Amino acid sequence: VAVPARRDPVAVFDSGVGGLTVLHELLVSLPNEDFVYLGDTARFPYGDRSAEELEGLVIEVGARLLAQGAKLLVIACNSATAAGMAALQTLAATGIDVIGVVAPESQLAVEATRNGRIGLLGTRATVASGAYERALAAADPHVSLLPVACPDLAPIIQNGFPFDQRVVETVRSYCAPLKEAQVDTVILGCTHYPLVGPMLQRILGREVTLVSSGPAVARRVEHTLALRGLLSEAAGEGEYRFECTGDPDSFRSLGTRFLQMPLGDVRRVEVAGERVVT
Amino acid sequence: VAVPARRDPVAVFDSGVGGLTVLHELLVSLPNEDFVYLGDTARFPYGDRSAEELEGLVIEVGARLLAQGAKLLVIACNSATAAGMAALQTLAATGIDVIGVVAPESQLAVEATRNGRIGLLGTRATVASGAYERALAAADPHVSLLPVACPDLAPIIQNGFPFDQRVVETVRSYCAPLKEAQVDTVILGCTHYPLVGPMLQRILGREVTLVSSGPAVARRVEHTLALRGLLSEAAGEGEYRFECTGDPDSFRSLGTRFLQMPLGDVRRVEVAGERVVT
Repeated sequence: VAVPARRDPVAVFDSGVGGLTVLHELLVSLPNEDFVYLGDTARFPYGDRSAEELEGLVIEVGARLLAQGAKLLVIACNSATAAGMAALQTLAATGIDVIGVVAPESQLAVEATRNGRIGLLGTRATVASGAYERALAAADPHVSLLPVACPDLAPIIQNGFPFDQRVVETVRSYCAPLKEAQVDTVILGCTHYPLVGPMLQRILGREVTLVSSGPAVARRVEHTLALRGLLSEAAGEGEYRFECTGDPDSFRSLGTRFLQMPLGDVRRVEVAGERVVT
Repeated sequence: VAVPARRDPVAVFDSGVGGLTVLHELLVSLPNEDFVYLGDTARFPYGDRSAEELEGLVIEVGARLLAQGAKLLVIACNSATAAGMAALQTLAATGIDVIGVVAPESQLAVEATRNGRIGLLGTRATVASGAYERALAAADPHVSLLPVACPDLAPIIQNGFPFDQRVVETVRSYCAPLKEAQVDTVILGCTHYPLVGPMLQRILGREVTLVSSGPAVARRVEHTLALRGLLSEAAGEGEYRFECTGDPDSFRSLGTRFLQMPLGDVRRVEVAGERVVT
């Protein structure tokens, strides 16, 4: 087992391009680090799969990234975090930390709320998993969560560009129960949602704090690397590169909107058949 | 002369689509207000014109918007603010406030800096005008400004999407003197620049505060409307609509990236020949 080193990259993993909103924040917050991003686009979307199936996929992809020598692994996907976090932490019990999106976002939401009423927008799988309820209860038992399943939102964001009035109507309909319940903090429980962040803020009003995965994860990654003595000591900006299991061209063309920076080379990789038995 | 009323729209004016980054922030910060945006795209770009010529254009377009019954006028263009603000304030001496981008941004920069060293990225015209130097000196005589003219940056942002490595190199070259001078605050002196905000933040480091026109203008518009008793009392989100002097289709297709919200209808208008003599 290799010992993680400061110069190793941080690995970021998602079912598709959504996790690029998390990588975006990591690139801005931790400019000296190197990153490798793997999008399991061949098996996108994860949101409709069973928890058992998801766990298998997460272990498979996670094992690949760990074998490449990452010093830390980020699961930048809410469905995968909810279903596969525990199993992957076991797999990574070799000194590599695994960070998902649920716990860091829940922590930020608890810090942000003043009236104790927190809303959640997420896919059906994420809402059904109850993962945010558990993470919030662990962070602060005296908050209440109003979860809203948004089955149409991630697809409309991924395919519906440029945004039209229909997108606004969809976002508004999902916000209605949150406004009604007078939540003062809303967790964006899907990495796609920051792309409609301005629309959400306009509809919900600026008194409402939006908590998204990127800043929450970036903070926790930095804390963890600092604690382990693993922060990069390189001068200047680090490198970042991309792997995906599906078509690299569509990954690149879709991904730019999510990353807001040049994507450069995207390499196609195979992960099927590399499944690791725990 | 009509007296401005709470239900009147706020007018926002720019030479092109860049001012949509300012409108974006206004839509998020002041969701109940109505807005009308005019892009003088037929005469874009303003950055290469003489101060005298610019003053004429600003008066012409401003007069049109005032005649339509706006309760406040925002000049969301740095070149136009630098050259035409004074003339337009005279023209608007009828109880309509005119807000440009230079003074609000300078105020925010003075609030943000700790070491007193402020950088400016802007077009050649904006840097040559010395407008930011004057506004900063008025807000706080004990700060220094390092201006960097970025002739290639606005065109590359407007035409270079998706961003490639060349954009990163261009941004990095303009940042070099700012890093060297150890400024802790950088004014984005062009409404196009927020689109490379994440790139700038990554290159400059997150200890550097970026000040852009949108939040600065939104804050001042709100203060002004509140002071005048002109804030909208409407419930729900307001309306917004677009006019441009050039081709509406290219305005719409370019504009979406800058507004980050649906543009809806864009109407072509004529302003030449409506020049008002002051």
